[in-house]
Amino acid sequence: MIKSLASFVKLVNKNNVFLEQVRYASQALPQLSSEKYNIHRKDFGRIESSDVDYFRSVLGPDRVLTEESDVLPYNVDWIKNCRGQSKAVLKPKSTEEVSTILKYCNERKLAVCPQGGNTGLVGGSVPVFDEIVISFSLMNKIIDLDDLSGALVCEAGCVLENLDNYVRERGLIMPLDLGAKGTCHIGGNASTNAGGLRLLRYGNLHGSILGVEAVKADGTVIDCLRSLKKDNTGYHLKHLFIGSEGTLGLVTKVALHCPVLPKSVNLGFFGVKNFENVLKLYKSAKSKLGEILSAFEMADFDSINVTSKNLKLPNPISDYPFYVLVETHGSEEAHDGEKLTRFLTNEMESGLILDGTVTSEPAKMQTIWNLRESIAAAGLVGGYVFKYDVSIPLKNYYDLVPILRKRLGDKAIKVFGYGHVGDGNIHINVTVPQYTKEVSSMLEPFIFEEVSKLNGSISAEHGIGFRKPKYIHYSKDQSALGLMKDLKQLMDPNGILNPYKVLPDHI
Amino acid sequence: MIKSLASFVKLVNKNNVFLEQVRYASQALPQLSSEKYNIHRKDFGRIESSDVDYFRSVLGPDRVLTEESDVLPYNVDWIKNCRGQSKAVLKPKSTEEVSTILKYCNERKLAVCPQGGNTGLVGGSVPVFDEIVISFSLMNKIIDLDDLSGALVCEAGCVLENLDNYVRERGLIMPLDLGAKGTCHIGGNASTNAGGLRLLRYGNLHGSILGVEAVKADGTVIDCLRSLKKDNTGYHLKHLFIGSEGTLGLVTKVALHCPVLPKSVNLGFFGVKNFENVLKLYKSAKSKLGEILSAFEMADFDSINVTSKNLKLPNPISDYPFYVLVETHGSEEAHDGEKLTRFLTNEMESGLILDGTVTSEPAKMQTIWNLRESIAAAGLVGGYVFKYDVSIPLKNYYDLVPILRKRLGDKAIKVFGYGHVGDGNIHINVTVPQYTKEVSSMLEPFIFEEVSKLNGSISAEHGIGFRKPKYIHYSKDQSALGLMKDLKQLMDPNGILNPYKVLPDHI
Repeated sequence: MIKSLASFVKLVNKNNVFLEQVRYASQALPQLSSEKYNIHRKDFGRIESSDVDYFRSVLGPDRVLTEESDVLPYNVDWIKNCRGQSKAVLKPKSTEEVSTILKYCNERKLAVCPQGGNTGLVGGSVPVFDEIVISFSLMNKIIDLDDLSGALVCEAGCVLENLDNYVRERGLIMPLDLGAKGTCHIGGNASTNAGGLRLLRYGNLHGSILGVEAVKADGTVIDCLRSLKKDNTGYHLKHLFIGSEGTLGLVTKVALHCPVLPKSVNLGFFGVKNFENVLKLYKSAKSKLGEILSAFEMADFDSINVTSKNLKLPNPISDYPFYVLVETHGSEEAHDGEKLTRFLTNEMESGLILDGTVTSEPAKMQTIWNLRESIAAAGLVGGYVFKYDVSIPLKNYYDLVPILRKRLGDKAIKVFGYGHVGDGNIHINVTVPQYTKEVSSMLEPFIFEEVSKLNGSISAEHGIGFRKPKYIHYSKDQSALGLMKDLKQLMDPNGILNPYKVLPDHI
Repeated sequence: MIKSLASFVKLVNKNNVFLEQVRYASQALPQLSSEKYNIHRKDFGRIESSDVDYFRSVLGPDRVLTEESDVLPYNVDWIKNCRGQSKAVLKPKSTEEVSTILKYCNERKLAVCPQGGNTGLVGGSVPVFDEIVISFSLMNKIIDLDDLSGALVCEAGCVLENLDNYVRERGLIMPLDLGAKGTCHIGGNASTNAGGLRLLRYGNLHGSILGVEAVKADGTVIDCLRSLKKDNTGYHLKHLFIGSEGTLGLVTKVALHCPVLPKSVNLGFFGVKNFENVLKLYKSAKSKLGEILSAFEMADFDSINVTSKNLKLPNPISDYPFYVLVETHGSEEAHDGEKLTRFLTNEMESGLILDGTVTSEPAKMQTIWNLRESIAAAGLVGGYVFKYDVSIPLKNYYDLVPILRKRLGDKAIKVFGYGHVGDGNIHINVTVPQYTKEVSSMLEPFIFEEVSKLNGSISAEHGIGFRKPKYIHYSKDQSALGLMKDLKQLMDPNGILNPYKVLPDHI
């Protein structure tokens, strides 16, 4: 598992301080998903040596992995929750190769599992049984960048951070940013409609993605790879592939709109008394920081405390019940500084901010972001973590954390909440010494029922993947599920694309 | 035609100065679309008195129009290019009524034409033959506004300007703005993926629309009316209805994200020497105005001159080959003023701006916007206008105007170009004394071939509607058209929703 561990560590942090975590990650493999979740294999073909020969004839011998040790990293997700049983990984280098592979698999009814950076949190990017993994890691070419319009065109396997570095050198930034940026692929981002840290400012991928090229199950290449901001010529097909998690087609190329690189970036990290004040502070930030507000994140005491302790990351301020991270992106340092200072002065006087730190030094900003971005991984150290990613209307945003604390009592080590207030998106983590069905059944479907009562979404940005199809009805009604089923039947009649994912068995 | 004239005038301008135009508009009805474009009626049912009785039983007598004079305004589009032959207009007040009507029409194979504000420019919102018009004008309730998150939920028939007024009073603005705002409906905006004047800043509707409720041809209500910013629970079905021009389902409710109302708005109107300098100025504005830039529009000399003369609107500066309108939306007057002044000083010194005016007075800004927004209607006065709305990569953005001037010679009164530089979207108008097939055939498909060669889109924001299906292949390849056809077959197997529109006859 060397490869996946390497990317695992890279994903979590680039400072190489996570020895504990590495040690933990190398200890054990997760249980097979099919056993853990009691899933039955569907009636797909089984890969034979003649199939492997065919794939080798298309891709050459080096890009068809069949050795168990080579295939293993592709079978396990990074939170070590799911494990599939794939026997083969294919590494195409072009859309034509993807098309050829899919056409063949469709005819042979061989199921496939597309895999980008394998950083998903709902088991969507690893096989469940013996689906053939199609890895996009070798499709990583940047095709074009128009630095006046900001249109970037690239292959699906480009790593988000590499793209961001590339466009930054040309005065632009990527419209999305997430903790997994060092590993995740832009094709995976598109397929899962990744959200992340700056959606508040730059909008979601349905708005930022200008075009998509995708391959349907039967090998048909759907070319919607326009790099125009406006194109109202018929159905907006690209959206079928954005967020459908590889179940309607495999994204092979993406065109995105990159905003202008901000000349001035500031970051504030504040201690706040209670959640009510977090909301008041958000309202004030929207008004006083206006167009320069690029992120408004919150984390409760346990989120920061667990992260700081487990990952040995410094907390730049003292202990507070809630923390708020406010980032600004602007074009004029003096103006941004003035806005931020006024915001700070006002809200320290008003008492909404108890204490805090503000910086525009890149290294210090990195330290704070690192703390925030590492929360996702911190709970994994020394135990198991149940992770939930939900949207809840702001007035009830934090309600579930105290409810769960009460419900679980001492069965949980910690229950903590953090997330993107500006997007109504909270991540709730429940840490336990190890996975047990008892705790699982206390959490699910309870948490989804509560979210549904609050008119929230049971999956804000992580998707449905393998782990949530049975709960999707809490967020989609029967008519919508019926239309999803019809679309799946239309575009992938043999159901070979990423089976056991997204769609529930019975609609 | 009193009603449509009233809305026509309102649409063009609210100053009641367009007597010439009103006179012109009242003179003549356009030729029947079926004759003008040689279209054959498809094999739909024909409305009978028993059908009218049924509709009256559902809607009551007042909301089923069958008198010829009552129906006429619904048969003619506002540029007086298309005329249908509908015999009945239905005015539902609820989603349930829309569902009941559609279920019945689907069973009887009666074709329908959904109509919002009827401000479309491609004949999409009026019938071609005897399709039953479903008007959304009575579905105009605002359902909810969350002023912290900015989520607005409303019925499809709300007029855009009314919504904008409503949310402005609560510290927000609508994320889109267009010349037709006083008449167009939000449901029509969603169905056509309307673009408009501030897309540069606030993004497109695929990004701004949080949720949609729509009714399929068979009457099934698809409820995707979430008002959450992030919701990755299965397929993102709402996008099927955004921009599909009422051919996959009728939008009945919309949830949108409204940005914060800017506290400071400035408008500059500049004279520029040539198009090369327009592009240079755009680059400079992106960099110097950064996050406060909310619109960057251009118009050539003839656009402004024709508008100023035909509609008796004052041009605040002298004659220049090109005009640029730059708008800023910001949260801090002093900062915005400083940025704008620096931009202006620099670019007047550099010579990119030859002359200009800058204002933050609402009345003066309105005068300038009025001039810009009235260009679309100005060409209609005293003749016919061929209108094209295309996206072209910026370096070739203006190329087509001189090409067309040369090609048409004295057959055209004027050829002029104006549009949204920031979005790569140019509107090209060709004015002629009256519609002739000769000029039409010199323009089409020539203009679409040229756009296609430049990797542009043959319809940037106006859509395909009735007038462009035969040209759609210039912007969509065979595989994409095939998928469109499959989707139409899946969602509307009898083809009753807005027939003769969007999809070409043969794919």
